[in-house]
Amino acid sequence: MNHFLSVEDCPNPLGWAHEAIKLKEHPFQDKLFGINKTLGLVFFNSSLRTRLSMTRAAQNLGMQTISLNVSTDGWQLEMDEGVVMNGKNAEHISEAATVMGGYCDVLGVRAFPSLVNVSDDYSEKLLLAFKKYAGVPIINLESATLHPLQSLADLMTIEEHKKVSKPKVVLTWAPHIKALPQAVPNSFAQWMNRVDVDFHIAQPAGMELDEAFTGEAKIHYDQSAALRDAHFVYVKNWSSFKEYGSVGNAPSWMMTLEKLKDTSNAKLMHCLPVRRNVVIADDAMDSAHSIIQDQAKNRLYSAQLVLRKILTQ
Amino acid sequence: MNHFLSVEDCPNPLGWAHEAIKLKEHPFQDKLFGINKTLGLVFFNSSLRTRLSMTRAAQNLGMQTISLNVSTDGWQLEMDEGVVMNGKNAEHISEAATVMGGYCDVLGVRAFPSLVNVSDDYSEKLLLAFKKYAGVPIINLESATLHPLQSLADLMTIEEHKKVSKPKVVLTWAPHIKALPQAVPNSFAQWMNRVDVDFHIAQPAGMELDEAFTGEAKIHYDQSAALRDAHFVYVKNWSSFKEYGSVGNAPSWMMTLEKLKDTSNAKLMHCLPVRRNVVIADDAMDSAHSIIQDQAKNRLYSAQLVLRKILTQ
Amino acid sequence: MNHFLSVEDCPNPLGWAHEAIKLKEHPFQDKLFGINKTLGLVFFNSSLRTRLSMTRAAQNLGMQTISLNVSTDGWQLEMDEGVVMNGKNAEHISEAATVMGGYCDVLGVRAFPSLVNVSDDYSEKLLLAFKKYAGVPIINLESATLHPLQSLADLMTIEEHKKVSKPKVVLTWAPHIKALPQAVPNSFAQWMNRVDVDFHIAQPAGMELDEAFTGEAKIHYDQSAALRDAHFVYVKNWSSFKEYGSVGNAPSWMMTLEKLKDTSNAKLMHCLPVRRNVVIADDAMDSAHSIIQDQAKNRLYSAQLVLRKILTQ
Repeated sequence: MNHFLSVEDCPNPLGWAHEAIKLKEHPFQDKLFGINKTLGLVFFNSSLRTRLSMTRAAQNLGMQTISLNVSTDGWQLEMDEGVVMNGKNAEHISEAATVMGGYCDVLGVRAFPSLVNVSDDYSEKLLLAFKKYAGVPIINLESATLHPLQSLADLMTIEEHKKVSKPKVVLTWAPHIKALPQAVPNSFAQWMNRVDVDFHIAQPAGMELDEAFTGEAKIHYDQSAALRDAHFVYVKNWSSFKEYGSVGNAPSWMMTLEKLKDTSNAKLMHCLPVRRNVVIADDAMDSAHSIIQDQAKNRLYSAQLVLRKILTQ
Repeated sequence: MNHFLSVEDCPNPLGWAHEAIKLKEHPFQDKLFGINKTLGLVFFNSSLRTRLSMTRAAQNLGMQTISLNVSTDGWQLEMDEGVVMNGKNAEHISEAATVMGGYCDVLGVRAFPSLVNVSDDYSEKLLLAFKKYAGVPIINLESATLHPLQSLADLMTIEEHKKVSKPKVVLTWAPHIKALPQAVPNSFAQWMNRVDVDFHIAQPAGMELDEAFTGEAKIHYDQSAALRDAHFVYVKNWSSFKEYGSVGNAPSWMMTLEKLKDTSNAKLMHCLPVRRNVVIADDAMDSAHSIIQDQAKNRLYSAQLVLRKILTQ
Repeated sequence: MNHFLSVEDCPNPLGWAHEAIKLKEHPFQDKLFGINKTLGLVFFNSSLRTRLSMTRAAQNLGMQTISLNVSTDGWQLEMDEGVVMNGKNAEHISEAATVMGGYCDVLGVRAFPSLVNVSDDYSEKLLLAFKKYAGVPIINLESATLHPLQSLADLMTIEEHKKVSKPKVVLTWAPHIKALPQAVPNSFAQWMNRVDVDFHIAQPAGMELDEAFTGEAKIHYDQSAALRDAHFVYVKNWSSFKEYGSVGNAPSWMMTLEKLKDTSNAKLMHCLPVRRNVVIADDAMDSAHSIIQDQAKNRLYSAQLVLRKILTQ
């Protein structure tokens, strides 16, 4: 059974990106692939793009969907083994995941990290419990540490917009008012390390990502040095991995139009949602540099490709 | 692109009402019109009739639907331009609306007024932001000031039940325990002013609606005088427009069977939900005067007609 | 019109169980039965299995679905007649149920008991209001006193696993940390009393169920005596019927692997969700005795059979 939990489940990132780009021309051509199949979407956290794009992707493939907001539609789940369940959790993940897998042909799961306990979060307990118990393919809709559907859409967007064969891609930290997961930057780094780009990451001291994900990326602490001659600037906030979950404080790292002027007319990327004038200034957001909406739109096709791969495996 | 935000987007209200009535005979005849199309339903406020009737209307046309409860499924949106987004709003409407439009072919939007700031509410900021940014047709599912899907259903119901060519239609204020929007009465007035009826509005002093909507309606402060010889009595509470959002206090304006006796055997209308024995007494609700359930059922066909118009424009 | 509110609406429980078992072989064979039909699912309480299994069952039959979480998507409903509705309830059930029935072809309703007022709960006010007003077939998705879709799945599971023609079936109370409804055990008793099994119920003193449902079941106060030679052990907590809603306190009634050793190699059943090591110990849950996941999976087919019966009546 093929899951889609990380780049490890994608044998050919560049090939998949180009297949997903091709889907745009004939989005309904595979409408019979999903007949009699149901995709269950299990949300432990809120979602806008992921919920809409996955649902639409399934519809384009002729699949049915069922969405479940675990905490409001259902109840809280116990993740640990051997527990006397006399607290707030009314059902064990081993039962719930098995049941959900029994009614659905594919399950998508979204579950953010606590940002409190790094080993709990980085063990991906919940996602792996679904993989273990559900008995059907699992799609990661953003887990504690990774967001591969976003990364595949990001790669598609770079491939569509690149003008040199090996572009300089810079992932730069930006400020935020609260602690955000590391899932998007971790995952982007994983994918960039599998394709032929000149990949850089810039962040203030203390905000380094887990080296297990950043791998061979060139690391910078000077944002303006990192941005020089960049072809793609991916802006994203994340909380600290080292001082786990701490927000960081470096307001000068906000992306602006001025900063983009030093690049090689770079394309500006962000996964959304973005807090304007905190993460990215209006003048950059609303400039011709931005390909942020192309990126968002590509979420539909990255989702549809992954679903098609699973339906036809 | 054709939106459906108000009566201004309907070139022929009477014609549309009769087309919607005809839909009832063969509700599934247009089932191929919606193939490969997805309707996104975006709820900033709760909904029963609108949610169910729009979903069913889409299904009757072969469309897929995706429903999003913005505050529980997603997060709060910033409406103002140029803001430093360091507060509770995690995403700007300009991004969110563009994204939603990117995944859906048509968007329906429900967003009630604050009833605090009249100029904010009456500028229809949120609805117009969707129109500006989404890039797809927008359907008003009840906005700060208008509810045109309700009004089209109201007109259908009048056309089905009228026994004289130019009926006397009376919209009368009724009491309520809390501040309700003016959207339903504003919109009803707009639609009545476009068709050939003798249109009257009755309310206590201080509860007058915005003249931009009431137009040529005959205004009464004496409910019993207004009701005399009426063929249709549309009962509805609304909060004050002049003293914006104030509830008003006139319990004697509750509709009763006794009051209906002075009419020309009038049909009783209300858009629902209705608080019994506060807005309308049980004896009137449960009398043969009531066509309230016909009105509610017509919401399905008014929604289906508007969707069909958009799909075939 | 055929409703499905209790075993009374099933003329042949054993026959239906076997029809449902046959559905598993060709779950999509009746996909045209539901064409142009919409199932409305109305949830006054949270749900995981019921929500997913009913939705999937409808999809397997080609039906569309609309789900409504009454309290979060809509508003609270008034159940009593003649009330001045100046409190928290914004709409009367008589209006809301009629409207929902107007937009849907079949309605499923889930509404738990208060566990405060026994006569209110046991009069099944809400479910019967839907039956009275909706004008379409109503399916009980677990009401104040009964859960017949669960019981049909339970009977299917017994039929699939039984090795003697008249098995000994023991329903045994188990501890819990909060007051749970009596709906599942009431309903299971009703169904067992209609088929050819040797049916026993065991509970601590004070936790007896309503005799209207238990009927001819053999009642035990000694769990180990009851379990002896059992072929099926159905474990379930319920709150007291006599001291209405009280939780009870008998931790020694938790099911364990040790207790199952005294049975005739009994199959272990539970309707889920289950609190591990409170209701059933891990060693029993994870043993070969358990057919709990078969039971859960059968919910899909019991739902699909009931829907098919309604569509083809």
